[in-house]
Amino acid sequence: MKKLSLAVAALLALGTAGFAAADQFEDAVHARKSAFTLIKANFGPMGAMAEGKIPFNKEAFAARAANLEALSKMPWEFHIEGSDMGDTKAKPEVWSKAADYKAAADKFQTEAAKLAVVAKSGDEKGMKAQFGATAKTCKACHDNFKNK
Amino acid sequence: MKKLSLAVAALLALGTAGFAAADQFEDAVHARKSAFTLIKANFGPMGAMAEGKIPFNKEAFAARAANLEALSKMPWEFHIEGSDMGDTKAKPEVWSKAADYKAAADKFQTEAAKLAVVAKSGDEKGMKAQFGATAKTCKACHDNFKNK
Repeated sequence: MKKLSLAVAALLALGTAGFAAADQFEDAVHARKSAFTLIKANFGPMGAMAEGKIPFNKEAFAARAANLEALSKMPWEFHIEGSDMGDTKAKPEVWSKAADYKAAADKFQTEAAKLAVVAKSGDEKGMKAQFGATAKTCKACHDNFKNK
Repeated sequence: MKKLSLAVAALLALGTAGFAAADQFEDAVHARKSAFTLIKANFGPMGAMAEGKIPFNKEAFAARAANLEALSKMPWEFHIEGSDMGDTKAKPEVWSKAADYKAAADKFQTEAAKLAVVAKSGDEKGMKAQFGATAKTCKACHDNFKNK
């Protein structure tokens, strides 16, 4: 009986771990998508300002650029091994070419940080130019690592 | 025929505006929930460190405190009038007692900013104490403005 109990206990433990792990992966997908949602929510209005679709407001732009810089650091920890599942548009290359993905993510963070700096200066032309440079790093990464 | 066409056109325009507005509200709900998801994703590990469930790592704690400070500013713009719908746990009081909600949100931001400052100092005791003070502002707001 003792052996069976241990086996049952082991199975139960495995089952629990299995459920915990699945939750962990779903949580990771949800958290990284949340970060990208907020990146988009801040990037969108900056783009609308840069393109003249809404009035250019330096303070609003700078606040969004500060948000973006902070957010640019957040999605990456949630790309844990095993989270290439569920409701995600991440391509397998995020994991199979992890070094390339990290390089692309680093570029975005670098350009977003520059955008926050130039936004503080209040130089509208510089802000628009750096917005463009930052947008290019979004696109480069989406092209290679995100399904449509 | 002309009158009918105009009526149809008006209905179509209304329909389009209606869809656009609904999307706007859903986007707002999605964006604010994304902010709270990331707040939780950063707050959770800080809590686990504060309670000794995982090893206390000052650098990791400080990085999360910096994330939290930035994130503490983000959910509020997405509580637009009319977004008390869909997949949300926000109580109607968010809008009917907007000044109280803002006061509660401001308290959270103030305590989160203090947490980021003390986290930079590396004073573990102070970090844990200020984590507790910040957690209280979360709870106060959840109690009054969030459904279970």
